[in-house]
Amino acid sequence: MAAAPVWSVDPRTGKQREQVAVEATAQEVDAAVRAAHAARSALADRAVRSAFLRSAADELQAAEDGLIETADAETALGPVRLTGELARTRYQLRACADLVDEGAFLDVVIDHPDDTATPPVPDLRRYKVPLGVVAVYSASNFPFAFSVPGGDTASALAAGCPVVVKAHPGHPALSELVAKVLRRAAARHGIPAGVLGLVHGFEAGTDLIRHPLVAAAGFTGSVRGGRALFDAAAARPAPIPFHGELGSLNPVVITEAAAGERAEAIGAGLAGSMTLGVGQFCVKPGLVLAPSGPSGDRLLKSLTEAVSNTGAGVLLDHRMRDNFVSGVAERAQLPDVDSPVTPGAGGEHTVSAGFLTVPASRLAGGDAHDLLLEECFGPVTVVARYDDESEVGAVLSRLPGNLTATVHLSEAETAGEGRGTQLLADLTPLAGRVLVNGWPTGVAVAPAQHHGGPYPSSTSTSTSVGGTAVERWLRPVAYQNTPEALLPPELRDDNPLGLPRRFDGRLER
Amino acid sequence: MAAAPVWSVDPRTGKQREQVAVEATAQEVDAAVRAAHAARSALADRAVRSAFLRSAADELQAAEDGLIETADAETALGPVRLTGELARTRYQLRACADLVDEGAFLDVVIDHPDDTATPPVPDLRRYKVPLGVVAVYSASNFPFAFSVPGGDTASALAAGCPVVVKAHPGHPALSELVAKVLRRAAARHGIPAGVLGLVHGFEAGTDLIRHPLVAAAGFTGSVRGGRALFDAAAARPAPIPFHGELGSLNPVVITEAAAGERAEAIGAGLAGSMTLGVGQFCVKPGLVLAPSGPSGDRLLKSLTEAVSNTGAGVLLDHRMRDNFVSGVAERAQLPDVDSPVTPGAGGEHTVSAGFLTVPASRLAGGDAHDLLLEECFGPVTVVARYDDESEVGAVLSRLPGNLTATVHLSEAETAGEGRGTQLLADLTPLAGRVLVNGWPTGVAVAPAQHHGGPYPSSTSTSTSVGGTAVERWLRPVAYQNTPEALLPPELRDDNPLGLPRRFDGRLER
Repeated sequence: MAAAPVWSVDPRTGKQREQVAVEATAQEVDAAVRAAHAARSALADRAVRSAFLRSAADELQAAEDGLIETADAETALGPVRLTGELARTRYQLRACADLVDEGAFLDVVIDHPDDTATPPVPDLRRYKVPLGVVAVYSASNFPFAFSVPGGDTASALAAGCPVVVKAHPGHPALSELVAKVLRRAAARHGIPAGVLGLVHGFEAGTDLIRHPLVAAAGFTGSVRGGRALFDAAAARPAPIPFHGELGSLNPVVITEAAAGERAEAIGAGLAGSMTLGVGQFCVKPGLVLAPSGPSGDRLLKSLTEAVSNTGAGVLLDHRMRDNFVSGVAERAQLPDVDSPVTPGAGGEHTVSAGFLTVPASRLAGGDAHDLLLEECFGPVTVVARYDDESEVGAVLSRLPGNLTATVHLSEAETAGEGRGTQLLADLTPLAGRVLVNGWPTGVAVAPAQHHGGPYPSSTSTSTSVGGTAVERWLRPVAYQNTPEALLPPELRDDNPLGLPRRFDGRLER
Repeated sequence: MAAAPVWSVDPRTGKQREQVAVEATAQEVDAAVRAAHAARSALADRAVRSAFLRSAADELQAAEDGLIETADAETALGPVRLTGELARTRYQLRACADLVDEGAFLDVVIDHPDDTATPPVPDLRRYKVPLGVVAVYSASNFPFAFSVPGGDTASALAAGCPVVVKAHPGHPALSELVAKVLRRAAARHGIPAGVLGLVHGFEAGTDLIRHPLVAAAGFTGSVRGGRALFDAAAARPAPIPFHGELGSLNPVVITEAAAGERAEAIGAGLAGSMTLGVGQFCVKPGLVLAPSGPSGDRLLKSLTEAVSNTGAGVLLDHRMRDNFVSGVAERAQLPDVDSPVTPGAGGEHTVSAGFLTVPASRLAGGDAHDLLLEECFGPVTVVARYDDESEVGAVLSRLPGNLTATVHLSEAETAGEGRGTQLLADLTPLAGRVLVNGWPTGVAVAPAQHHGGPYPSSTSTSTSVGGTAVERWLRPVAYQNTPEALLPPELRDDNPLGLPRRFDGRLER
């Protein structure tokens, strides 16, 4: 049987650009994992890791023009957005390098013997060690930031874990280019190329998650694909952590008072957020609870104008376009659903942005309208009009987990009057990030960022963006009564590496 | 159909003591979970939580005599051991209270807006919130410390999570008594009794893990039972974290030089550790790599003497006794396996301690001797005699994950000469706790403790003992651009609660 070819496709035309590779066989997946496993020791030194991450950022910068050109040809995301995304990706690599140098993520805890404890405490010294080879399943919608050089890869390398990436079929040529760039950076520090493996193909992805030497996985993609891999990870003879970002509706609640104060601004802001990147963000606001009545009408008028003025766009690939067109059509034909601006097919290769409205009472559950509570990838949102506050609570209580939840409040509510505090408390159980008077699109790379949330927005309690993403690829080990001569320097009393730690109960920074 | 009765049984006689309860129906499990869910808000205030935990310790102390009597009648562990275990359990509750007061586990991170970042960073403030109702599956071998009032319960309550405990059938009367004591402590702080639910019965355990309002689970027990519950947790429509401690062989490596220096002391120490508590510790050393040759012979002579002098003991229940008797018999009849002291049935209700020997070369894999690499609960260990270092590495490479791994080194090796460093590096991937020149039985409650390890010793990367056990029951939430008036006090700039935090990148303590 001939190996299945992997083609690079131009979504603006639907035409094949070039054959990039062939799908990896089980033997090739095995070889990639073994090469990654063999590269572990090259990442043992934290100084080497941080230097490698910075070199990776540098090499991506040096290769920028070619990378952007290929990325645009395969994703149609446009050079402006892609240049920004690549800058973000480099920033993230450097931020990870800073974390490695700081070393707080090692979570060093040192306890000296204490005979007064019950039972007595021996000498115990704990820190975190890398889990091993990490499988990274890259996303279509961020060909840099959530793909080969993205947050999963950067944080895994920061933790000391080699990576095997399952390339997204939407940008295979870019994936190959980026892998070469990262390996060039690795070579500058004597790290073997196997530290960053790359495989193509659906079967290769399932072979990868089942490989005995794969110790953990990161995933960004659909509920269906992510759940299948999560299930495979859990069904292994030795299950492994699976950190997947699967899907999110990202609800937005607009209070009556907020709409009364700034209906037009909110409508325009919502239009901008839901159509950004042709609606292909995992944090796109997909369900908006807006008041019925005159203020809500003003908001919808503003939204209608802004969305109508949004040009047609090209989605990442034709499969997504088909899913979008059929998804919005199925939703639009539900009883009591209106389409003030009809989303759907644009030209032969494009789609038009739009939005749907529905009475919030229709989302009380148990009928076909539940479809409106599922993510629809692309430039569409659903505005549910509510008559009173109880309807807001009823809809929120029916939502699955989300990456984000947003509330727009009036000036007085923002200052703490009325329902602001209660609404924030109601939204917190629903999401990993809660926003006030803003829009969820845009995920900053920062220590406090949390990009994850209750299932299905994440399969774990971790984040795939921000300062704590590295935690996913580590496990603690405690050393008991181990003499200084045998201890790693991280665990020595005199703290030769200057690490923040907990020392005999006290936090030292 | 009549509800199935739950009996308290005396393992010293095999006779039923009294009917304690009936097995919970699905409706009763549902009621317990809903009552726990309703109690969440009563745990929202950290000051209330820590006061509750301290009161729980106080009430356990006040009830000590009755608790010890019942525990001994149901487990035969003896008043001395049980009194120590109860003291440890109270210490753990108070240690958790201290952690709650300190608040470091909230992992507060605050970032102010930074327009120079790529992309720009908004105001982001992150901390951790409780997951919700935690299901706790208690263990047989620690009727206090890993049961109703044990580490899972204490850490879950510390995190702000109400608990529903699945009682172990080995000590149902004690479980009921302890639940009442804990509820009395709760009542002192206005916390409803539902904060600590208790259910009996195998079916109730599976109903519990599938309940939509159960947000996470902790488990200590067998590989078979734990894996079934892990699988059920992963198969839920919305999977939940399952922190299970399933089984561990706890390998011990004794170098030729160590045996040469102190064969007798090592043999006696091993005998004490493997027979402690009638061999019913999850950290019992179950596989010992000892050198062949004269030093190893001396070690075995000392081990033989000490184990021979160990009196017969009563196991926790008759099912365990049956498993032990058949398990050791099956192992003893393998080719090239000897029994210098034959373990097995003692009197009608007791068992005798013993140990087996086997050439390490017999553990190279692929045959019936693999059984020797599986945990056998009770007072038995397997001593594998090795001819050279390569045999040690070969056996270690075949081991599943462990809670602990131990190495005994000579004085020179302990000082860093020879193979000490390498052996420590070889053992680290195998376990969550690595010991030098000690014995793994005895798990101190301390900030640096890690009681967990690669699968099957744990189903997660977390610990069930020590300062970081609380992390299991929390998830992060980030608030974006949220005005001070609406922020929880934990996330305010002025830090009214004096929490350790990361503030604009800097660690503050």
